[in-house]
Amino acid sequence: MPRPPNPEVRHRLLAAGLDLVHSRGFAASGVKDITDAAGVPKGSFYAYFPSKEAFGAAVLDHYWSDIEARLLPILDSDGRAQERIQRFFHALADEHAAGDFLLGCLIGNLSLELSGSSEPVRAELTRILEGWGDALTSCVRAGQRRSGGIRADLDAAELAALLIESWEGAALRGKVTRSRAPYDRFEAVTIPALLR
Amino acid sequence: MPRPPNPEVRHRLLAAGLDLVHSRGFAASGVKDITDAAGVPKGSFYAYFPSKEAFGAAVLDHYWSDIEARLLPILDSDGRAQERIQRFFHALADEHAAGDFLLGCLIGNLSLELSGSSEPVRAELTRILEGWGDALTSCVRAGQRRSGGIRADLDAAELAALLIESWEGAALRGKVTRSRAPYDRFEAVTIPALLR
Repeated sequence: MPRPPNPEVRHRLLAAGLDLVHSRGFAASGVKDITDAAGVPKGSFYAYFPSKEAFGAAVLDHYWSDIEARLLPILDSDGRAQERIQRFFHALADEHAAGDFLLGCLIGNLSLELSGSSEPVRAELTRILEGWGDALTSCVRAGQRRSGGIRADLDAAELAALLIESWEGAALRGKVTRSRAPYDRFEAVTIPALLR
Repeated sequence: MPRPPNPEVRHRLLAAGLDLVHSRGFAASGVKDITDAAGVPKGSFYAYFPSKEAFGAAVLDHYWSDIEARLLPILDSDGRAQERIQRFFHALADEHAAGDFLLGCLIGNLSLELSGSSEPVRAELTRILEGWGDALTSCVRAGQRRSGGIRADLDAAELAALLIESWEGAALRGKVTRSRAPYDRFEAVTIPALLR
């Protein structure tokens, strides 16, 4: 009789898988590498995830849920909308700096590695990017009202999408240069240029 | 006695490898997949490339040389600098549209998949991004002089880097949404916002 799923084992697989997929990429992280890193038998992987693609989607959810809980609230904090947006992206860049810019953003990494070939991963990426966009849109919209200083001639959702896309491009370049320079110029130039 | 290298075989390996790596990613494209697609024996791969990483760098060079020859001259053509920049990125987006936005930009794809793990690929990406940046910098600088309409309070190289980074972010999102919308908003909003 199969043993009932153990949430702690699932969590270990996700945590170990996140580290591996984030540093090596998805295709380069084998199921055995993941189960070895998690310290569980290889066979148990499929008791928790129907496929490696489903695992990829779950790793993305695991990664994003953490950012959502810890950093997204910055967008709802005190201060002018543009300052909150600056603080949010600065906090994200601090996390990339802590990893010496070796890892990049997992959302961006898997967008390019898998959205051409895996529908389950692409669906999860779409959900995450929409949730991120919604949180930024609310903040941009607040800055468009009440003379918050954000240009009101463009749709808030469009500006939010542009912020995310330009930031992902900065993280991409930062992974090549291994430096904060692209993040810094995004903060110093792109955010004000897009929102003013 | 080993046969002398045949430039035609090398070219077939690069062309077949480019198609595979662009659509599946680098780790997911095995040496045998590449030699099969090129119609050459697996053993001949290493007669042309000392390692799979060296092959990855050569595929990037093959991809970029083509863009450099066909599209980069748009930046040197007639018209105002900002219009030339718009035409250049529009032409790049047309190429992504021709592939139904399934492939993305190979430079961006390999920046995220490999620059954390492969120094030879990261060195080639650095060279390509610098060359691309130099071409854009000349155009931006021309637009900063002679009342060309481009803001002169920021370094031309900094603006060029921001254009590339924001465009790579647009291509990343376009691969997830399988649509031209992110490229269109980059052209309509980001380029004028950064350069004005």
